[in-house]
Amino acid sequence: MKLTFDFGSRSYPVILKRGAIARVGRLADLSRRVMLVTDAGVPAKYVKSLLRQCRRPCSVVLPAGRPAAGAWAEITARMLAEGFGPGDAVLALGGNGVGDVAGFAAAAYLGGVACIRVPTTAAAQLDGAVGGWSRLAQEGRPDALAVLHQPELVVADPDLLDTLPRPRLAAGLAYAVRTALARSRELYEILERDGSGGDIERVLFLCLQCKKELVERDEALTGEGRLLELGQPVSRALQAACGPCAPPRGACLALGLLPMLDSRTLAKRTRALLRRLGLPLEWPCPVPEVLRRIKESPYQEEGLYTIARVKAPGRAYLERVDYEELRLLLGGGEG
Amino acid sequence: MKLTFDFGSRSYPVILKRGAIARVGRLADLSRRVMLVTDAGVPAKYVKSLLRQCRRPCSVVLPAGRPAAGAWAEITARMLAEGFGPGDAVLALGGNGVGDVAGFAAAAYLGGVACIRVPTTAAAQLDGAVGGWSRLAQEGRPDALAVLHQPELVVADPDLLDTLPRPRLAAGLAYAVRTALARSRELYEILERDGSGGDIERVLFLCLQCKKELVERDEALTGEGRLLELGQPVSRALQAACGPCAPPRGACLALGLLPMLDSRTLAKRTRALLRRLGLPLEWPCPVPEVLRRIKESPYQEEGLYTIARVKAPGRAYLERVDYEELRLLLGGGEG
Repeated sequence: MKLTFDFGSRSYPVILKRGAIARVGRLADLSRRVMLVTDAGVPAKYVKSLLRQCRRPCSVVLPAGRPAAGAWAEITARMLAEGFGPGDAVLALGGNGVGDVAGFAAAAYLGGVACIRVPTTAAAQLDGAVGGWSRLAQEGRPDALAVLHQPELVVADPDLLDTLPRPRLAAGLAYAVRTALARSRELYEILERDGSGGDIERVLFLCLQCKKELVERDEALTGEGRLLELGQPVSRALQAACGPCAPPRGACLALGLLPMLDSRTLAKRTRALLRRLGLPLEWPCPVPEVLRRIKESPYQEEGLYTIARVKAPGRAYLERVDYEELRLLLGGGEG
Repeated sequence: MKLTFDFGSRSYPVILKRGAIARVGRLADLSRRVMLVTDAGVPAKYVKSLLRQCRRPCSVVLPAGRPAAGAWAEITARMLAEGFGPGDAVLALGGNGVGDVAGFAAAAYLGGVACIRVPTTAAAQLDGAVGGWSRLAQEGRPDALAVLHQPELVVADPDLLDTLPRPRLAAGLAYAVRTALARSRELYEILERDGSGGDIERVLFLCLQCKKELVERDEALTGEGRLLELGQPVSRALQAACGPCAPPRGACLALGLLPMLDSRTLAKRTRALLRRLGLPLEWPCPVPEVLRRIKESPYQEEGLYTIARVKAPGRAYLERVDYEELRLLLGGGEG
């Protein structure tokens, strides 16, 4: 299946197909210099498959887990040392952590070189690898830094999800629940019916299609594109509060979605769905700690936060609220 | 005088006017949080003038001279610590070094915040502060990293040039010579006639107008916009070869322009012009050293360099040459 993300001269194909990792060399020019960026958690067979398709590959293997803030500059330093030119490329093989540092490096190197993304997690395949944003943490604040640089090609191969540990797959599906709540009742009902055991290709396709529609109209994510930031004000605060011991991003996101649901019925239904997907729904730290981080969050303008809320599956809307309103949504707590 | 740089929804005014520094607060909203970025070489009276116009200013004063590679991240860390939000702004007061780190920080912070530029040098007023590119060195390679993020407002106040040391003004005028050679015979003749003693406002205006025409058609600088990179292949190599002891960028640029002139007559005429402006025309390091850096330069594709050359004042063209051709243009030397 192929979706074209249309950004005029910066448009690119997103290939969603089992086994597509073996065909990246036919979809993109891998005869240039290619800097493969991956992490130690990605199975060796995928790394080998891509390296075999490159004519003159170099590679950077980051430690598994969330990359350090300066990791992107190590990649550009390596590209300089290897003489990478403006026509060469970065190839990101991994989850969102890898995609973000590789994407940031590609965006900045010589003013921007091609970036090919081969996401290996559900969260990256259905959301993070498309749309062009690469985000980095600074001083413990997730996403404090971000640059926009559309990739040249995205290859989402669902086969790669088969080797994921189950909690990692579940965490990724939290992003599918978000997309469903924001934009697709059909997707919500599929997830409710099948959990993580259904037609993953269909789930990925629906997510990518929703994202395509939104980002094509709002590439900068300053308007309706922010519907896909549903849950983020809370999940970012949760990550900042828990620091390096934070649960996976997807698990934080699941917790961030719940307070944004307008009815008790929808909250109950969504809690059941998230539980079915294997997502833990216990708060890993006290709510007042999360509230403190929300208060300090840079994502506010004059004390107002733009948040997405949900009336019913597929029907999200944006609202500007102050800290007090956000605190009440989180069920009070001291603030 | 006002020029509008037209980039659709990201268009912005460039104000060229004596005394305009005192009116920045009327041209832009300085009631938001503003992070003033400057360096220790900028006269205190300009810093004070801007701080007085801001309602809630913070400031970062970089050491004088070329900023360190990581300086931009210190600025974003400070913005995080001060709780800067997506509606706040960076205000860059300085030469291109300050403008580049401040612009890079503004481009990355929360995915991009407003950047107001008040350039204090000729090079920054006539060239660097407009067009939206912020460039950083890495591993001693100038401009190895670059991001595009158009400013919100540029205020070029020619009064600020009056306090510049003479060599710094001369170095800046090398950029005017470049623009003249690339695009404007009128400007070339004005510079020839008046040296640095003429109508600086007219010189700045003509430079800004040439840049506007080119970057509006080629914002990414991948096509004809590269005409304004005239001289850069050599000047960057010269800077890399000389390291921290390199002459000012403008002086390196002057040396980089000369080999790109097609006729002996034009070379002789331009050498006289540069000398009249007070630019030193002795190479600060041996040509083979510069050639070695050109050979290692990342700005090549498959061994080919895109360079701008000049037939006559105002008439530049782009050409792809290999290392040997570039070596011959530099008068041979061992390579």
